Amino acid sequence: MRRPRRPAEETREEILNTAERMFRAQGYASVSIADIATELSMSPANVFKHFRTKTSLVDAIATRAIEQTLNALKALASDRPAPERLYALAQHLMDEHLSEQVDAPFVFEMILVTITEELDCGDRFRQIVVGMIGEIIAAGVEEGVYHADDIPRLANATFDALACVIHPVMTGMEKADIMATRCREVVRLIDAALRSPLAK
Amino acid sequence: MRRPRRPAEETREEILNTAERMFRAQGYASVSIADIATELSMSPANVFKHFRTKTSLVDAIATRAIEQTLNALKALASDRPAPERLYALAQHLMDEHLSEQVDAPFVFEMILVTITEELDCGDRFRQIVVGMIGEIIAAGVEEGVYHADDIPRLANATFDALACVIHPVMTGMEKADIMATRCREVVRLIDAALRSPLAK
Repeated sequence: MRRPRRPAEETREEILNTAERMFRAQGYASVSIADIATELSMSPANVFKHFRTKTSLVDAIATRAIEQTLNALKALASDRPAPERLYALAQHLMDEHLSEQVDAPFVFEMILVTITEELDCGDRFRQIVVGMIGEIIAAGVEEGVYHADDIPRLANATFDALACVIHPVMTGMEKADIMATRCREVVRLIDAALRSPLAK
Repeated sequence: MRRPRRPAEETREEILNTAERMFRAQGYASVSIADIATELSMSPANVFKHFRTKTSLVDAIATRAIEQTLNALKALASDRPAPERLYALAQHLMDEHLSEQVDAPFVFEMILVTITEELDCGDRFRQIVVGMIGEIIAAGVEEGVYHADDIPRLANATFDALACVIHPVMTGMEKADIMATRCREVVRLIDAALRSPLAK
């Protein structure tokens, strides 16, 4: 019996799932598009139709992971006061990266590829998280606890100040308990800045 | 004529100079201790007497570079108000790393070795820079512009918030003009926190 033709979207997802599983298990560097095609019993040409390069595969895998993280963030403590939301956001992003690295060391390799190859997913991630921080700051202004004239500017500075605990490269370097203290202390510093009329 | 025996310290310096030059030119991974000995017309055993491993060589090279950086920092604008000194410190550390990477891509490889091998030089660097930040905060309190009860705590948080612009791994990822803006904005945020009585 001939298998019915599946929609392209479904094939694309299947390629992504298999590629992600193989990259996580064997490492990005040692898996080729031909290996992925073999694993899927597809022709390499069929995989190439969807992804022309290994980096475009990593970009798509990272984009998907980022979307999942961001969806989880949206639901995060949105009924709490702004300072608590800021801390929850930083903590969640940090824990996400810390757990990824415990689960699979090759994930770190993939993250480095997205950085060194300057893939779009990193910029999109920054843009969306900066947007979320901006919303929290705006809510804090509304609540009367934060002072801000230029919210996007402060949101960008806040994102950068948080890099020490949310950037995947930085979270890969320290033990979880040191990171937890670091996160609390840096958020505390940022919070003091946002509460100050001087940060305007 | 027999060459007079040189003091051990001099031999050590010569080994460091040669190793640093070779690592910078050919990369840490592709230069062995035997290569360094050959270049110096020494026996490998003689090099081993001073440095037992390649990582201990990198540790010594990094420590020396860090000391040079820190000496330059000490002289930096110590007669200016605390907020200006904080900005000058961040900017100097950032520029140091940015220029290193332009000059020699293999330097980045050595920095990564110090991080992944958890060499002492990284901790020492953190400790000394945190101490310098603490001095600047204390001077700011003296000048009446900063408020701080627990200076070491704020100095540590400040160091971490600056990681996005002074950590060698982070400076390796962005263009110099983006980094310059980022540095100015993050220091501005930290400055607002330190000026606020809430940061106590």
